Amino acid sequence: MIPDGVVLELASKRRSIRKFMTTPVPLGDVFYAIKAALQAPSGANRQPWRFVVIGDSETKMRIREASEAWEKRFHESGSLPEWFRKWLRERNITWEKPFLSEAPYLIAVFSRRGEPYARESTWLAIGYLLLALEEKGLASLTYTPANPNVLAKMIGTPRNYMLETIIPVGLAGEDKKKENRLSLREAVFINEWGNQV
Amino acid sequence: MIPDGVVLELASKRRSIRKFMTTPVPLGDVFYAIKAALQAPSGANRQPWRFVVIGDSETKMRIREASEAWEKRFHESGSLPEWFRKWLRERNITWEKPFLSEAPYLIAVFSRRGEPYARESTWLAIGYLLLALEEKGLASLTYTPANPNVLAKMIGTPRNYMLETIIPVGLAGEDKKKENRLSLREAVFINEWGNQV
Repeated sequence: MIPDGVVLELASKRRSIRKFMTTPVPLGDVFYAIKAALQAPSGANRQPWRFVVIGDSETKMRIREASEAWEKRFHESGSLPEWFRKWLRERNITWEKPFLSEAPYLIAVFSRRGEPYARESTWLAIGYLLLALEEKGLASLTYTPANPNVLAKMIGTPRNYMLETIIPVGLAGEDKKKENRLSLREAVFINEWGNQV
Repeated sequence: MIPDGVVLELASKRRSIRKFMTTPVPLGDVFYAIKAALQAPSGANRQPWRFVVIGDSETKMRIREASEAWEKRFHESGSLPEWFRKWLRERNITWEKPFLSEAPYLIAVFSRRGEPYARESTWLAIGYLLLALEEKGLASLTYTPANPNVLAKMIGTPRNYMLETIIPVGLAGEDKKKENRLSLREAVFINEWGNQV
């Protein structure tokens, strides 16, 4: 029923997309992906995650504006290490975040503070989410805002939930090569650290 | 090429397994799953993860013994909240961790300290890993040890890497129902917090 190699195929095909088409995509496909995420394991099965799917243009624009204001400050501050500045420069990544208003949907993902392994569980579920979006042909990015608390408040989030990421979802508006990845030999050891495959 | 619904199907089928058969499983299938995990996105593509695959019986037993010693202390301390004790009791989960020696392989997963979003990225990759293991028919558990630093040292891990989880991998030795999961209606809001699907 499940052909060999599907997960690796999806994982290999997926790349982070920063330019989206404004073309609408089915909300059902977004729900499909969240359904998959809801099946993830979590500490003591507390399922400490919540998802807010934002399709409203005005809300998206407010999130974009608030994010860009913080990003601008962040990018212009001297606090970024040089390797990181270089990495951003080479990819033309600036403080501007057009994907926050242009992608048809944003998925804001929250973890509940105080639950066992809440953040770990939530990010594990985000892994499920990304693969399910890819399966539906939907591009995505795990954007981690510089001002999560401001955005969380804007969405009406209670204090005991933490905004982990905002994931723009839609059709890719750029043709991007996948960034290089480590090989098994580089990332895996056998029985003890340093003992290569 | 990819049939509709595969990710949801794998996500729904997978459940956390605590009893493993000692039957050997192909190391290639474990590598397959790690290959998928290596394709995950990460902060500035730093790929801050490393994996140690442990098949050696003696090493597994040493990890089990060290873990159980700490778990025993942890379970017998008065520090666990009552709801959590109850949850463990109902599932017969004690300080004993036979899966650490009985599963044919343990995958120790590490994140590199100081990298941007290192822990978030690593747990996202663990999401990929679990689905790929499920695809190969391999049962798994994200066991988070009480004494990660002791175990990391045992494996020879340098100080700048943190042990996130030890994942026993093998054939399920128990027939377990999946724990209940939240519905879309319970876990998802539209446009703002509280606005149900």
